[in-house]
Amino acid sequence: MPLNETHDPTLRSWVESANLPDADFPIQNLPFCVFRHGHSARRVGVAIGDSILDVPDYTSLNDLAARGRGACSELRMKLSRALRADNPYPPKALLYPMSECRLDLPLEIGDYSDFYASIFHATNVGSMFRPDNPLLPNYKYVPIGYHGRASSVVVSGTPVRRPCGQLQSGDHPPVFEASRQLDYESELGVFICCENRLGEPIPIEKAEDHMFGVCLVNDWSARDIQRWEYQPLGPFLAKSFATTISPFVVTMDALDPFRVPRFHRGIDPQPLAYLDCEGDRTRGGIALTLEVWLTTGKMRAEKIEPVLVSRAGFDHMYWTLAQMVTHHASNGCNLRPGDLLGSGTVSGPEKSARGCLLELTWRGTEPLRLPSGESRTFLEDGDEVIMRGYAESATARRIGLGECRGTLV
Amino acid sequence: MPLNETHDPTLRSWVESANLPDADFPIQNLPFCVFRHGHSARRVGVAIGDSILDVPDYTSLNDLAARGRGACSELRMKLSRALRADNPYPPKALLYPMSECRLDLPLEIGDYSDFYASIFHATNVGSMFRPDNPLLPNYKYVPIGYHGRASSVVVSGTPVRRPCGQLQSGDHPPVFEASRQLDYESELGVFICCENRLGEPIPIEKAEDHMFGVCLVNDWSARDIQRWEYQPLGPFLAKSFATTISPFVVTMDALDPFRVPRFHRGIDPQPLAYLDCEGDRTRGGIALTLEVWLTTGKMRAEKIEPVLVSRAGFDHMYWTLAQMVTHHASNGCNLRPGDLLGSGTVSGPEKSARGCLLELTWRGTEPLRLPSGESRTFLEDGDEVIMRGYAESATARRIGLGECRGTLV
Repeated sequence: MPLNETHDPTLRSWVESANLPDADFPIQNLPFCVFRHGHSARRVGVAIGDSILDVPDYTSLNDLAARGRGACSELRMKLSRALRADNPYPPKALLYPMSECRLDLPLEIGDYSDFYASIFHATNVGSMFRPDNPLLPNYKYVPIGYHGRASSVVVSGTPVRRPCGQLQSGDHPPVFEASRQLDYESELGVFICCENRLGEPIPIEKAEDHMFGVCLVNDWSARDIQRWEYQPLGPFLAKSFATTISPFVVTMDALDPFRVPRFHRGIDPQPLAYLDCEGDRTRGGIALTLEVWLTTGKMRAEKIEPVLVSRAGFDHMYWTLAQMVTHHASNGCNLRPGDLLGSGTVSGPEKSARGCLLELTWRGTEPLRLPSGESRTFLEDGDEVIMRGYAESATARRIGLGECRGTLV
Repeated sequence: MPLNETHDPTLRSWVESANLPDADFPIQNLPFCVFRHGHSARRVGVAIGDSILDVPDYTSLNDLAARGRGACSELRMKLSRALRADNPYPPKALLYPMSECRLDLPLEIGDYSDFYASIFHATNVGSMFRPDNPLLPNYKYVPIGYHGRASSVVVSGTPVRRPCGQLQSGDHPPVFEASRQLDYESELGVFICCENRLGEPIPIEKAEDHMFGVCLVNDWSARDIQRWEYQPLGPFLAKSFATTISPFVVTMDALDPFRVPRFHRGIDPQPLAYLDCEGDRTRGGIALTLEVWLTTGKMRAEKIEPVLVSRAGFDHMYWTLAQMVTHHASNGCNLRPGDLLGSGTVSGPEKSARGCLLELTWRGTEPLRLPSGESRTFLEDGDEVIMRGYAESATARRIGLGECRGTLV
């Protein structure tokens, strides 16, 4: 997509908080959300600075998404003009302080699928469980994914209960107990907009037309449940107790200034033809940074700020979002408006870029030291995981994805 | 549940076709469906003989399901009384010939999960891929399941397109081509009625209260796609191109006369406590028979009737529906009205009771001979798979599940 006036880095809004240099939601971003103010019904909104502008044309983001990329771009243009500092009639009556609003899940999610698109994550995890054979032979050909659970996707801020499950070790029979190895996974999610019909694949050249926008995803994982249950059909209850997402959908349009070439494969095999096109080679990547911050009950009590535990670049992902969408639909599977695709844990090559505790503590052998004097191998009750994401570039205004928060109870 | 007047085997209906001895839908059954007659909107109906009675109280079976087992039982009682031969005011104006109706998916399916509950199926398939270790150590403890794709669940009669996917053999790199190993899987599905809240497990004693009723499921599977993609996260595109279900929900109430003790485990470990209760031991099984019939383009052209290829008893399943429901929710995962749980392929101990071609032809080594002179290892274009199910007992009226049909195109 070509850049247009909505991307102009000099644009300012009459919502002053949007003009602060570190704002996640400047006028160049305009992410969509669904909110309630007081006892009002749910409304569609767009985040601007520390506020939300009501978008009265729609009552559901699924309806907007179903109209496709073009409709979303048009609405974005209108909203950008309405929010500009030079708008002589700013719609101030439609502006609500975000602090007074309750944010809901942005879309009704029909199906949630989760990928495994970081080769660094796949190699790290593989080398713990299969030291001789860390990366399976299909990895460089197939954007590996699996079906996740849609019903238990919750919005940022929802407390997460530690799940029970079958835990097994040594030669003992399993016991049914609370998980002791609770982990987060830092991912990017992409929402689908217009639907492909069942039986009709999505060519890779068209994949971006089916993407509405992105959010942060915390794919909570109970590693001990996972280890015992996952063969031969994959993760099930280890994941389905909760998946937390951020409440804002940052549109693909807003990400346009941050598109970069996809991951360089070096001597690895090139993608099969159905997963390859010029546009994906040159602009399939996104220069997004994902951060994970952690705080504990003790840290909160002692007024110690959350600590940054990892920071990873999304441009290190082996598979692009377009490749995931096209692969998913390559068998004719229909992707519907509101369907969510998770990228899988976003880990980079550096140790500081490992997007889950399993990797970060190398299966618990290298505990994480916290400023409170505590240490962590896996999460403990009261721990809060805070994910943040943002895109920066020399020529564009920085935009953020907001936060994805969850406290374990 | 105690039997009541709706189960009386001597009851007759004023809809004469319901009184034929081999009718799937006698007055003792009363399965729900969603139908259209002519250009009318979708309506909730109940099948009776060769007809459908409009149920004007509801516009969606999800709404009925959400009201729980009690509401479903009450409505069933009303419908039974309305349809009895001795009703002085039979509501004939609400009766539509089934042949004039189009049947839709009975419920809007939020999440679809699929289990692997036949130990005969798991052992057969396991012994083909891991001859030394056919049954993994978790099988006798964990009702193994995985998340399936809800968007591509279609109703009986919908043509199914052969999917493309990555096929790999030997040391060659994979190619992206049409699957050559297309298979069916004969399963039973159970629809969820009332929801458990996220974080609140369903005790096994209460599991039946969360079941609305059952249907037939054809879990189409592309074995060649599956073999290459399934490690380490399980089946994905090998299954998500289509899943066909029968249009009728046979309620748990209708199945009451056919409940039997669950599968006898012999010397195998007993289920962990959370998967065990007296009610499940004595009545967890269902004396249901599932049949698979096959016809080909050539057979249709030569007017050869479809041929029975397998017949299996659902009472041979290692895990009960209640155990699947309770296990699924044991980590706090919320199951919502309309969610569908598949049992996994229903195979019994006999060779004639193998519920998919992979088993029936032993991975293609023992082709199926058809009366047309053709043979099959996997499905060919134009083949139609027809699944049927029924429950019989010496003391109750036989009831059927109807048909689940799909033609490969």
